[in-house]
Amino acid sequence: MMDIGHILKLVQAGDLSAEEAELRLKSIMPGEEDLGFAQLDLNREQRTGFPEVIFGEGKTAEQIILIMQKMMAHNDRVLATRIDSAKADAIAAAISGSVYHPTPRAVTWFRNPPLEKHDGYIAVVCAGTSDLPVAEEAALTAECMGSRVERVYDVGVAGIHRLFRRLPLIRGANAIVVAAGMEGALTSVVGGLVASPIIAVPTSIGYGANLQGLAALLSMLNSCSPGVSVVNIDNGFGAGYMAGLINQNMSKRLG
Amino acid sequence: MMDIGHILKLVQAGDLSAEEAELRLKSIMPGEEDLGFAQLDLNREQRTGFPEVIFGEGKTAEQIILIMQKMMAHNDRVLATRIDSAKADAIAAAISGSVYHPTPRAVTWFRNPPLEKHDGYIAVVCAGTSDLPVAEEAALTAECMGSRVERVYDVGVAGIHRLFRRLPLIRGANAIVVAAGMEGALTSVVGGLVASPIIAVPTSIGYGANLQGLAALLSMLNSCSPGVSVVNIDNGFGAGYMAGLINQNMSKRLG
Amino acid sequence: MMDIGHILKLVQAGDLSAEEAELRLKSIMPGEEDLGFAQLDLNREQRTGFPEVIFGEGKTAEQIILIMQKMMAHNDRVLATRIDSAKADAIAAAISGSVYHPTPRAVTWFRNPPLEKHDGYIAVVCAGTSDLPVAEEAALTAECMGSRVERVYDVGVAGIHRLFRRLPLIRGANAIVVAAGMEGALTSVVGGLVASPIIAVPTSIGYGANLQGLAALLSMLNSCSPGVSVVNIDNGFGAGYMAGLINQNMSKRLG
Amino acid sequence: MMDIGHILKLVQAGDLSAEEAELRLKSIMPGEEDLGFAQLDLNREQRTGFPEVIFGEGKTAEQIILIMQKMMAHNDRVLATRIDSAKADAIAAAISGSVYHPTPRAVTWFRNPPLEKHDGYIAVVCAGTSDLPVAEEAALTAECMGSRVERVYDVGVAGIHRLFRRLPLIRGANAIVVAAGMEGALTSVVGGLVASPIIAVPTSIGYGANLQGLAALLSMLNSCSPGVSVVNIDNGFGAGYMAGLINQNMSKRLG
Amino acid sequence: MMDIGHILKLVQAGDLSAEEAELRLKSIMPGEEDLGFAQLDLNREQRTGFPEVIFGEGKTAEQIILIMQKMMAHNDRVLATRIDSAKADAIAAAISGSVYHPTPRAVTWFRNPPLEKHDGYIAVVCAGTSDLPVAEEAALTAECMGSRVERVYDVGVAGIHRLFRRLPLIRGANAIVVAAGMEGALTSVVGGLVASPIIAVPTSIGYGANLQGLAALLSMLNSCSPGVSVVNIDNGFGAGYMAGLINQNMSKRLG
Amino acid sequence: MMDIGHILKLVQAGDLSAEEAELRLKSIMPGEEDLGFAQLDLNREQRTGFPEVIFGEGKTAEQIILIMQKMMAHNDRVLATRIDSAKADAIAAAISGSVYHPTPRAVTWFRNPPLEKHDGYIAVVCAGTSDLPVAEEAALTAECMGSRVERVYDVGVAGIHRLFRRLPLIRGANAIVVAAGMEGALTSVVGGLVASPIIAVPTSIGYGANLQGLAALLSMLNSCSPGVSVVNIDNGFGAGYMAGLINQNMSKRLG
Amino acid sequence: MMDIGHILKLVQAGDLSAEEAELRLKSIMPGEEDLGFAQLDLNREQRTGFPEVIFGEGKTAEQIILIMQKMMAHNDRVLATRIDSAKADAIAAAISGSVYHPTPRAVTWFRNPPLEKHDGYIAVVCAGTSDLPVAEEAALTAECMGSRVERVYDVGVAGIHRLFRRLPLIRGANAIVVAAGMEGALTSVVGGLVASPIIAVPTSIGYGANLQGLAALLSMLNSCSPGVSVVNIDNGFGAGYMAGLINQNMSKRLG
Amino acid sequence: MMDIGHILKLVQAGDLSAEEAELRLKSIMPGEEDLGFAQLDLNREQRTGFPEVIFGEGKTAEQIILIMQKMMAHNDRVLATRIDSAKADAIAAAISGSVYHPTPRAVTWFRNPPLEKHDGYIAVVCAGTSDLPVAEEAALTAECMGSRVERVYDVGVAGIHRLFRRLPLIRGANAIVVAAGMEGALTSVVGGLVASPIIAVPTSIGYGANLQGLAALLSMLNSCSPGVSVVNIDNGFGAGYMAGLINQNMSKRLG
Repeated sequence: MMDIGHILKLVQAGDLSAEEAELRLKSIMPGEEDLGFAQLDLNREQRTGFPEVIFGEGKTAEQIILIMQKMMAHNDRVLATRIDSAKADAIAAAISGSVYHPTPRAVTWFRNPPLEKHDGYIAVVCAGTSDLPVAEEAALTAECMGSRVERVYDVGVAGIHRLFRRLPLIRGANAIVVAAGMEGALTSVVGGLVASPIIAVPTSIGYGANLQGLAALLSMLNSCSPGVSVVNIDNGFGAGYMAGLINQNMSKRLG
Repeated sequence: MMDIGHILKLVQAGDLSAEEAELRLKSIMPGEEDLGFAQLDLNREQRTGFPEVIFGEGKTAEQIILIMQKMMAHNDRVLATRIDSAKADAIAAAISGSVYHPTPRAVTWFRNPPLEKHDGYIAVVCAGTSDLPVAEEAALTAECMGSRVERVYDVGVAGIHRLFRRLPLIRGANAIVVAAGMEGALTSVVGGLVASPIIAVPTSIGYGANLQGLAALLSMLNSCSPGVSVVNIDNGFGAGYMAGLINQNMSKRLG
Repeated sequence: MMDIGHILKLVQAGDLSAEEAELRLKSIMPGEEDLGFAQLDLNREQRTGFPEVIFGEGKTAEQIILIMQKMMAHNDRVLATRIDSAKADAIAAAISGSVYHPTPRAVTWFRNPPLEKHDGYIAVVCAGTSDLPVAEEAALTAECMGSRVERVYDVGVAGIHRLFRRLPLIRGANAIVVAAGMEGALTSVVGGLVASPIIAVPTSIGYGANLQGLAALLSMLNSCSPGVSVVNIDNGFGAGYMAGLINQNMSKRLG
Repeated sequence: MMDIGHILKLVQAGDLSAEEAELRLKSIMPGEEDLGFAQLDLNREQRTGFPEVIFGEGKTAEQIILIMQKMMAHNDRVLATRIDSAKADAIAAAISGSVYHPTPRAVTWFRNPPLEKHDGYIAVVCAGTSDLPVAEEAALTAECMGSRVERVYDVGVAGIHRLFRRLPLIRGANAIVVAAGMEGALTSVVGGLVASPIIAVPTSIGYGANLQGLAALLSMLNSCSPGVSVVNIDNGFGAGYMAGLINQNMSKRLG
Repeated sequence: MMDIGHILKLVQAGDLSAEEAELRLKSIMPGEEDLGFAQLDLNREQRTGFPEVIFGEGKTAEQIILIMQKMMAHNDRVLATRIDSAKADAIAAAISGSVYHPTPRAVTWFRNPPLEKHDGYIAVVCAGTSDLPVAEEAALTAECMGSRVERVYDVGVAGIHRLFRRLPLIRGANAIVVAAGMEGALTSVVGGLVASPIIAVPTSIGYGANLQGLAALLSMLNSCSPGVSVVNIDNGFGAGYMAGLINQNMSKRLG
Repeated sequence: MMDIGHILKLVQAGDLSAEEAELRLKSIMPGEEDLGFAQLDLNREQRTGFPEVIFGEGKTAEQIILIMQKMMAHNDRVLATRIDSAKADAIAAAISGSVYHPTPRAVTWFRNPPLEKHDGYIAVVCAGTSDLPVAEEAALTAECMGSRVERVYDVGVAGIHRLFRRLPLIRGANAIVVAAGMEGALTSVVGGLVASPIIAVPTSIGYGANLQGLAALLSMLNSCSPGVSVVNIDNGFGAGYMAGLINQNMSKRLG
Repeated sequence: MMDIGHILKLVQAGDLSAEEAELRLKSIMPGEEDLGFAQLDLNREQRTGFPEVIFGEGKTAEQIILIMQKMMAHNDRVLATRIDSAKADAIAAAISGSVYHPTPRAVTWFRNPPLEKHDGYIAVVCAGTSDLPVAEEAALTAECMGSRVERVYDVGVAGIHRLFRRLPLIRGANAIVVAAGMEGALTSVVGGLVASPIIAVPTSIGYGANLQGLAALLSMLNSCSPGVSVVNIDNGFGAGYMAGLINQNMSKRLG
Repeated sequence: MMDIGHILKLVQAGDLSAEEAELRLKSIMPGEEDLGFAQLDLNREQRTGFPEVIFGEGKTAEQIILIMQKMMAHNDRVLATRIDSAKADAIAAAISGSVYHPTPRAVTWFRNPPLEKHDGYIAVVCAGTSDLPVAEEAALTAECMGSRVERVYDVGVAGIHRLFRRLPLIRGANAIVVAAGMEGALTSVVGGLVASPIIAVPTSIGYGANLQGLAALLSMLNSCSPGVSVVNIDNGFGAGYMAGLINQNMSKRLG
């Protein structure tokens, strides 16, 4: 971008075609497509490594279907999160090949059967069965990015031996998602036992002074173990995305 | 109290002396002594098992000395908390036999060398060295109540094996105080491993989203392990008192 | 755990059987059973004195029934809390001998008629009739642990004489649960009158600046009376468990 | 105000002098005096029954002295609150007859010795000795308004019998100020025992989850006893003013 | 209470009858009646000037009816607040003479037509029409206590002249209730214009950063006008009670 | 107002008619009309440039219709916000010429077809499609005030090039409304690129630590770009009003 | 930006010089200058109408001086805020012509005597003398932008007539800054009386439940008067900037 | 750990030496060393890839020196954070070879000159010069872990072109730390432009409604760009550690 003048001089001198110059300039300032009620960010995959993800909450089934169809024309995979079952039915009827995942309440579509591209894997660990929807949203998101996912569920610290039995599996992961509600203590315990980066996702499981997940959020932000970072409450998507990104980058460069 | 009329009729009938009647009535409504700027609650020990404790913050050294002297006339032991070193010097000069404990910042005085009266003990567990002042306030308070105290310090969950090595000692206690700052996860881990009641005391150790100990407080209130109750942030005194009370009651009745 | 080497040397020398060695090592790291969607912590009773309790919120009736059946195979008593009446009907139909308690919204099952094992008792005190569900959850939990419970209800401080009439009953308890909403002042008043440990449980009764029970929670954490510790808002189970634990330990050692 | 037209017509018709008309119009829109850095509200006493009170925090001694001198020209009494001792010395040197009250940190000046004008009195009740500065600010404010004040100090609920001994004195008051920190439970207890209006003032005494007085504030706002209203944390002035107003109005009309 | 001994000696000496002695002792410790699920505080009227008020939220219609019937046997007036229309129908069917007030959602019952006993009145002022339910709860409560009420509604500061037109009526009141939501600025404006005590009641009218009434609550607690005290959000009952108490006391003593 | 005396003297001297004098005095204290449940502020348009706007939440359809009819008698335009579709149907049936706008949930009525009076325009910018209802409320409000509105929607910073494409349009506006939820970062980015005043309106779009829009509100209040001010969460009306006012004033004076 | 291809084609065709093309492309992506510890945004004035302002807090005097000197080479005016007196002395010694303003704690430098460029003015209104530093920061900022400022100070609502006397002056302003602490009610009162846009700036004046200005902030965000927007607590600079921007734009286009 | 029995049987059978068995068992339960006031976790590097880091706040210089000396006996590198300059002087005098870094306030010691081990690098990006201490703590931490660090400072969104110029450098990093205060918008803007994982660290730079960094924290947790996770306020160490871990793992496996 700093050498705009230089590029233009090359064009003027005929040393660079206008087409090539446009391409290089556009690589910094990518285009978009105007769908009326939304501006699809169609080359986000080129920019960030993954297509725009549809956040289903607050959108009608019709809007979601329209966006999905547009995206299917430009991308090989589409992920829509926070889809309730009524919207899921409408989407399934409209878009052949789409799949609804009821626990994480998400819809996926793939042009070709997804291939597991990476040799590494991520671990998704959760404290209790009530944390499953968030954990599964994380797992599904990472799988959409091409990661293999190992699930380690219901290993909360009230019975800490359950965690220890699975430590080797957790330790082998390139990135670890820890989903926990209540006091979220599982994060710090895992953090003290592994050498892989941990993405902690607080869930809103709890009541009273839990404050809809704020207690777990604060707990995780104050973890006494290093190597831990945190995403928003119930944001399984964000945690899975971050973990998938780390695993994808590690594998991409390895390959 | 409900039979005031009955008591009075007995007195009227001469079946009960006025002195005895007064005693029975007063057993519900105990007296006090007016020291001007304070109303000493001199028979609190009879009512609750321990004399009134002097909270030193916001009182002058002179006030503390005056209260201590009054209490020494009625009790065999005196405990004053939150005493800075300047006040401690003044108290030491004025009251012979008083002892200052710099880490918990407390002053004690005993008429006779304190005798360890109970056969059981309490465990005071803390996560890091920064939690020591709070842990020591808990330990000293319990010792003033006649409890033996076992200290298990610096066993935070970032290196959880440190805790496991000391589990048998912790498990043998009649009551367990757990002091921790940051995310306070130690409480839940201990809670899942023992059968004794735990009194958790959050400390204000941490920064940022720790919110001066609120993160640890909320974490402890939301512990996924049962058998845990919580006192105010940095309230080592309260935790030690509660633990001492449990141990004292268990031992008293055993004897 | 520290003497792993020593144990192993004994085994190697033939002075300790592998079976015995395994038992001693396992005493620190107990097993579990994998039920797919949950990892039951079957020897929690050995570790903490009471079997795992089923938190019904966010679980389907089917899940609860399955967990109960598994637990009934390993334990003599099962407690499930936060069960609404629809789930309760399904459970009653599926599990013979289970009993639903509508006020505390809990299900219990006992292999044999529960025997009151302890000679002491706990007192459950509440401020108003709206606090009954929480108070009853505390009482039922303690009863499941074998405690006798004395209920002292609707004795809030707006008519403080109601409390005084029942003081002797409260004073005789090994542990006292105080459930109160609004400003929770009852806790401090009781705390100044008794020598037994108090577990305070704030309820979410109130409105406006009550902040769903936060006002009572903060009030109880700041109690000017010592000998008070606090559990989460509306956590009758936690309060009853803590009180039951204290009473059980006192009685166990007495026996 | 609604009859501006009518007043003007009377003036036009000569039935009302311009001077009288101006007086009546001005009775609604009172004047002021511009002192440069401040606009003194000199007829506030006529409007609200008491002259403007000087809030000393954030003002220099020079500014306070200048304002006091202006006010002394128009009023018979001046009250300045939140004055530290350094400013107090400067004021004492500059304004003869002014008196500094160190506990409530306030300065008063009276043209004539203050006469106790009212036959009733207010009671200022506080929970602990640390609440004294706030309680004394309330008492002094009410005294400046002509009220007799009965002080009932250090009667917190941890030793509730201390309160009961003084109940008759409290009950006789036209209005009651209750100052308390920590959990502020004293307010509700007094509220259940008297028939006079209570003005509760939370103090910032406490630590940790006290949140600089917020715990006591919330507690008082949620009092289960009716007849209680609340002022800002540490606002002894506001509580004393409100109580003094009630007592003054009752006495004025009685006279 | 301090002279228990003296009273008893008088009884013993025959100088005081047991009956009289009981009466004097009981004056401090009043009785109650146990209705099973509630402990009615039947002599609260003697103690505080008004019978216990029934808070309808969280109680069944049956419980409310039962309590009302018991109270009707001991009191001449009964007030029940927070009653929805379904419960109101049940109460109307069961209790002849009860009246439902839909705006404040309250039920009243009087043995005899209520007589306006006091010569003074209170003013209930509100900012907008959305504040009416709270304002009416305040007005009705004060009327139940025998106060005449002047209503000054919809005079919020966005059109401040509406307030000025009614100032004389407001100024004449013995006590003023100001109900306002949003930013609650009306309180401070009225406070600067009158010499009567103001009880401010924040309402939960607003959205977003209003935080369900917290914005108005904080605003009122920080009023720059003295002579203002505050009750809980939406607590019209509390504000009306406080105002009614002031007016009742002023009138009682005047008579 | 300061020259009341002077005005009156002029009247007395016959130099000013009573009518003229009344007019000048009334210019400060405008009248109103009492509709029973509401005090319509009918000359608000003269005072502030726009008639009172009806806030529909918490009002019945009947009340809204009645207020609209009264206002239609005095004003050429009426705006009612926060109207759900059920109320909208009732209003449409009762008031001919009224128009319901479903996205911003508002009703408008104009005596004559609204004329676009101003030569400038405002820009309403929003981050995502979920912010549309708030953005449209802002746009509609400004249009009611006579402003032309340019809409720039779905240009959130996750795909920042979408914003850049529309910068010239945004830069040309007299005032800019930026509506955004989640972290609200769009405000600061726009703020660094334009020379027109920005009114930021946080929306409640988000979840978890978004805290119903508080995250975006705080973000906008702390914008590192100057020239930004903020209105309440979801307050599209307030933002549109402020922007419309700026544009109206600029255009009025230009004409 | 969308027509990069078009621009390049023009260049290629020789219809646009490379220099001109660069200029047009750069108009969207302006340059900067790297000073090591800071990246000065030197063409911010071209982009937003005012040069970058130096926020003095957290910068050393040396850093401030260096930045000022660089800016003086590119701009005709420099404003630095939040400068304490020690730093001010160092700046005065180093930079000839710089002026320190002690009340708003700001430094200004102008190449030529500032000319008042605009025919309109802004009004800065504040509630009390303690709000002066914030009000003066607003006034000085606007003056630096070329606005004439009318100051209306100490007109808080406790004596609301003080405000009314100055209404005509306030009403004549193109934009109004209202600075107030405590409950910030002044904003809403002014908002109901004028037709100019108001920028409200809460100050941190107050104590207790004021929460360092949060009470005033929330109050202003919830103002019942439209035409009000809000900046951060104590952000006089932001308020003055916003007001100056409105006035500057109005005047610029008028000229 | 699950095969304890198997291991023991092997030992018993002589197929495994006791030493080897101990080693394998200890690999799960690592040892420690008791230094009295602290339990050093000496094999944390083996477990998590980096030695325990000394948090200097709340520790005396003597304690820090003693811990450093112990650690130097077991590790090749030592990092101590939150060291003020007074403690730094004492450490420098006691420990030869230690280096103090004043901006991040940290001390490092290396047995051998640190070798840059990894071929990738991390980028540390910050919004303003006030964020430097936090950014430098992140950079230094990552460097201690063997990462090369590229610093991109003072590129806040108020002048967003400063960021664009450095995008290629940022995009090339294996992990990106973004440090920002105020509204923290930089995180989301970067997040929309890169394909590497971002660790966001809010700083406490700001005032008023910034709430000591909470505004930036909430903003970052709610980022509309995926691939972002967050650490505690001012926790540069945590952000640098997480980024260093990702880079180290990527490089380790590449090698």
